[in-house]
Amino acid sequence: MHKTKNSKLPVLAIDLGGTKIAAALIAPDNRVMDKAHSPTLASEGLQPVINRIFSTIDRLLSQGNTSPAQLYGIAIAAAGAIDTSKGLVTSSPNLPGWFDVPLRDMVGKRYGVNTCLLNDASAAALAEHRLGAGRGTSNLIYLTVSTGIGGGIIIDGELYSGTSGCAGELGHMTIDANGPECGCGNRGCLEVLASGKAVASDAKRRIKEGEKSQITDIVSGDLEAITAEKIALAAQDGNRLALEIISRAAGYLGVGMVNLVNIFNPEMIIVGGGLSKMGELLLAPAREVVRERAFPLCAGAVRIVTAGLGDDAGVLGAALYARL
Amino acid sequence: MHKTKNSKLPVLAIDLGGTKIAAALIAPDNRVMDKAHSPTLASEGLQPVINRIFSTIDRLLSQGNTSPAQLYGIAIAAAGAIDTSKGLVTSSPNLPGWFDVPLRDMVGKRYGVNTCLLNDASAAALAEHRLGAGRGTSNLIYLTVSTGIGGGIIIDGELYSGTSGCAGELGHMTIDANGPECGCGNRGCLEVLASGKAVASDAKRRIKEGEKSQITDIVSGDLEAITAEKIALAAQDGNRLALEIISRAAGYLGVGMVNLVNIFNPEMIIVGGGLSKMGELLLAPAREVVRERAFPLCAGAVRIVTAGLGDDAGVLGAALYARL
Repeated sequence: MHKTKNSKLPVLAIDLGGTKIAAALIAPDNRVMDKAHSPTLASEGLQPVINRIFSTIDRLLSQGNTSPAQLYGIAIAAAGAIDTSKGLVTSSPNLPGWFDVPLRDMVGKRYGVNTCLLNDASAAALAEHRLGAGRGTSNLIYLTVSTGIGGGIIIDGELYSGTSGCAGELGHMTIDANGPECGCGNRGCLEVLASGKAVASDAKRRIKEGEKSQITDIVSGDLEAITAEKIALAAQDGNRLALEIISRAAGYLGVGMVNLVNIFNPEMIIVGGGLSKMGELLLAPAREVVRERAFPLCAGAVRIVTAGLGDDAGVLGAALYARL
Repeated sequence: MHKTKNSKLPVLAIDLGGTKIAAALIAPDNRVMDKAHSPTLASEGLQPVINRIFSTIDRLLSQGNTSPAQLYGIAIAAAGAIDTSKGLVTSSPNLPGWFDVPLRDMVGKRYGVNTCLLNDASAAALAEHRLGAGRGTSNLIYLTVSTGIGGGIIIDGELYSGTSGCAGELGHMTIDANGPECGCGNRGCLEVLASGKAVASDAKRRIKEGEKSQITDIVSGDLEAITAEKIALAAQDGNRLALEIISRAAGYLGVGMVNLVNIFNPEMIIVGGGLSKMGELLLAPAREVVRERAFPLCAGAVRIVTAGLGDDAGVLGAALYARL
């Protein structure tokens, strides 16, 4: 972004996910001044989602009687493979119909302010490094485990974005070369084995195959209503099937972490996203896999922890990125 | 290394691999002034290999009537998980018996000169970036595919070594979570599916299971004499079984590259090591897998090429590292 703007002005930050559009006004001291959100309703396709992004921004501006001219800029964190230099969402497994969408310029032109676009997990990585669980570290990996799995990479204290801005697609690392197909077109990705989607579909499959479980009662027999959140709650209540499913996903998450540990030798892996709310139920088995399978020198150097900033990580990171 | 030394003096560089110990005197302009080498005979264990490192250094020094005081320093590139800050070979799948060996200080004390130690593939990555196929790039991944598979990472033009110096163990990235056991203790590593060892053992297994092939004649019926080099030669001659085995390894190599492309979004992946001498026979199928499976934005940004420096990459990179 241009630095001609008054740095005392707030950034309007957007976090565009497969489920929710979150918007926030962020002060220069990283305080969240105001918020608004909408459901994404991604299945309705591109234009309706763009319209909801605009209406969410409009609402947030009108809530605080803020005009676009009173913004330092707009910063958008979006799920998917982002071309940061061109400001494109090139593709996004959880946003059907989004291919090479010039989201940065669409928003920038409508509001007449400097706008930037980056990957949502990269934004969260930056926020966790500057303000959250990763403060004081040099090298860290952020993994968001929710509907999908995203990642962000901090190297020598800086966000690493790669050659075209799409580095860090850690959920689309193959850990089972002959495994199930993933929404990205690859096979056996970490995302298809350890994400919220994977947990829910594993539960549906096992119950359809005849396994008896209280989970069927929890959703009143409507298996399509099974979500990772419900499986997580059932697991916390000691439900056997739910525990097995979470344990399987955590094992695969651990295998993904082994790869990250052997590749990056990071100081820290931070796990955020909806499934991270399970805490040790997810992290303890994953840590055990790292201890068993990674090079001891690398495994001994890494702390595997849950994120510190909760759902605000995306908007906070986007705002930090705008001010870089 | 300390910078008090006269930078016009040569570096004595060692490349310690599972098969060969190479030593070279490297001038400040990266010219190789003289060379010596010995077989590693790694199966004899730690002390005999250390002795052969010493005798190779002694021979190289006496060849040129060079005394240790006439060296800028000694730089050692070694296979395995290296703790660069402590100068330890912590473990090395292709050097049996090597655990937490203080190789840097053992060599440094014997010759009374500044000595440094780094991973061999990291050294080769640095050499390829400064002097070889990767000149002018910012972000590249180096993969050495020989007996084992090693890796090196260049980020923003600098070697990335991680928190304890063991980043870049790219051969020990799991790509088949339930796959065969690897020498490192993990399962389904890239190394156990796509290395020279993997190619040779795949050929042995298939012939033992009853497949007829001219390969049996090539080794005069002694299946233990099958090496990846012989399979590569047979494949170049059009041998069907050899072609199938190479194609399978190349496919797995491609899956490993998909991961590296989605994680790092690099400008270039450079493939070195013995198997890279096959050229397109190995790289063409791997590139095809990247094109099919990686995010298009990332896949479009990467060039996948063979190394430019051949067998000297390790010693050249070690010498460059000593002068950093």
